[in-house]
Amino acid sequence: MKERSLIQQIRKMAASSAKSAIKTEIGDDCAVLRLKPVFELLVTTDLCIEDVHFRRTWHPATAVGHRCLTRGLSDIAAMGGEPLACFLSLGLPANLPQAWINGFLGGLLALARCYKVQLAGGDVSSAPQITADIIVTGQVPSGKAILRSGANPGDRIYVTGTLGGSAATLKQLFAGKKIKPANSNSHFYPTPRLEVGDFLRKSRLATSMIDVSDGVSVDLTHICDESGVAAVLSADQIPIGKNANIDLALHGGEDYELLFTASKRAKVPSRIAGVAITQIGEIRNRQDYSSAIQIMDDNGRVRPLPQRGWEHFKKQR
Amino acid sequence: MKERSLIQQIRKMAASSAKSAIKTEIGDDCAVLRLKPVFELLVTTDLCIEDVHFRRTWHPATAVGHRCLTRGLSDIAAMGGEPLACFLSLGLPANLPQAWINGFLGGLLALARCYKVQLAGGDVSSAPQITADIIVTGQVPSGKAILRSGANPGDRIYVTGTLGGSAATLKQLFAGKKIKPANSNSHFYPTPRLEVGDFLRKSRLATSMIDVSDGVSVDLTHICDESGVAAVLSADQIPIGKNANIDLALHGGEDYELLFTASKRAKVPSRIAGVAITQIGEIRNRQDYSSAIQIMDDNGRVRPLPQRGWEHFKKQR
Repeated sequence: MKERSLIQQIRKMAASSAKSAIKTEIGDDCAVLRLKPVFELLVTTDLCIEDVHFRRTWHPATAVGHRCLTRGLSDIAAMGGEPLACFLSLGLPANLPQAWINGFLGGLLALARCYKVQLAGGDVSSAPQITADIIVTGQVPSGKAILRSGANPGDRIYVTGTLGGSAATLKQLFAGKKIKPANSNSHFYPTPRLEVGDFLRKSRLATSMIDVSDGVSVDLTHICDESGVAAVLSADQIPIGKNANIDLALHGGEDYELLFTASKRAKVPSRIAGVAITQIGEIRNRQDYSSAIQIMDDNGRVRPLPQRGWEHFKKQR
Repeated sequence: MKERSLIQQIRKMAASSAKSAIKTEIGDDCAVLRLKPVFELLVTTDLCIEDVHFRRTWHPATAVGHRCLTRGLSDIAAMGGEPLACFLSLGLPANLPQAWINGFLGGLLALARCYKVQLAGGDVSSAPQITADIIVTGQVPSGKAILRSGANPGDRIYVTGTLGGSAATLKQLFAGKKIKPANSNSHFYPTPRLEVGDFLRKSRLATSMIDVSDGVSVDLTHICDESGVAAVLSADQIPIGKNANIDLALHGGEDYELLFTASKRAKVPSRIAGVAITQIGEIRNRQDYSSAIQIMDDNGRVRPLPQRGWEHFKKQR
């Protein structure tokens, strides 16, 4: 039974990542996790489906595994949390080469080890296309998670790193260019900003936070909607990634940078954990604007910014 | 954007199932859960993929949703745990009728309400075939989860309810018979045995436990492997489900009954929470047998029982 040997393989590969929070290894009906007493649990799930979130011809298996776990870790980072354990539900076509599975698990588990996250369980099944659902659990001191709903008018808006680099690479891939993964880490091996999230929670600087997975125009709208506010971005302040432009920086997804708000009186460092922090705009009263997000161009003109977020590979097909 | 309206729909439908353990509604980067102080967290994930775990022509959408959540709840039951919250990662084909989505979510959420389980988050994506990954979290008092590894030689083996009924219905479906879901609840609307699992934990009767999702021959082997023991089953004691036979009862999957072991001195009731409990065999020393599981026929002859477990729809195709 192929599924059973795959479970054995995952169990063996995951054993090296053991962490004290996890009581049982893979191989019971459920994983058993122990939280610190005054902590709350964080849970996030993200689907990765072949030809929707990645293509086998473009993305090495190790990058698919790395990106898969990054999506979950980035959500934990966006709450200011500490990742604990991950779970993987894996649907695989019968004819998938073993080397692909090895590469995928290798990429996922290498990233898991970096952040001391144990692969603690999951499920395997046959599937018509590669399907990986990653579940990441984390912990945060009770009441201290950084939500999307805490932004206030007057707050400044910040992002980590640069934006649009991942989408620029995707555009090149669609144009038929061959890209070496080493030349576009932001696309193939993005870094979840866990240290930055942790710093922002401990320092109490951030009033709200989200990760930029669907693009700034979509993700900042979530902050505005949940907080009942509007935002004005300054076009000339957006930190634009390698090979990208302002359009890709505002609407391209999968950068996995953090977008957060902080009081205008807060002293936000220009670098946190080695990552550049850039102020890109400010939060305003919602009732003063027709749209959740506006962009101010170099001449000081303000216009509504439409949401044109990431719909995976759909818009290009 | 179809995905966004689907998220809105799920958010609205799930709001009615609010539970105090869950702090945030769907709509942040992670769900935030609060556990009782001396409890441990249980996590289980199960993939349901169209044409692997169900067929649209055979299974009404409400049954697919019900079965999907049952798989996760049954895992929580098999640990003696209390379910807290579930998460749903849903991949859907673009042309899927809205009525199917409504039926699926309706079936899943109706079962969730029965057991006061909140749908607390998840992910949505496009996919070539319907793909649903259900994650269920639960809690259990620290150190009290009933594992697969606690069976001892001399223990008696018990099951809840009857076995093989779900596989019998599947066999009929493969033979082209039309089956009314109301005539085969064990297949279309199986009941997760949460009350039985809870009783067995509180009464400390069970030394090990698993749910029968892949078939007795596979699932009891897990108990034997994890506990380092062997098992002898009595063919004439197996409680055979509607339209089933001994073969389907031993090897058919998806009954979602509980299989547990208890000391030979333990007083195990013949019914727990209204469900019949049947002794089907006993645990022996592993070194005395060539195989993990043996079956004793009506004439007292003992032979090894091969593992022929459930491989979803694969073996029939």
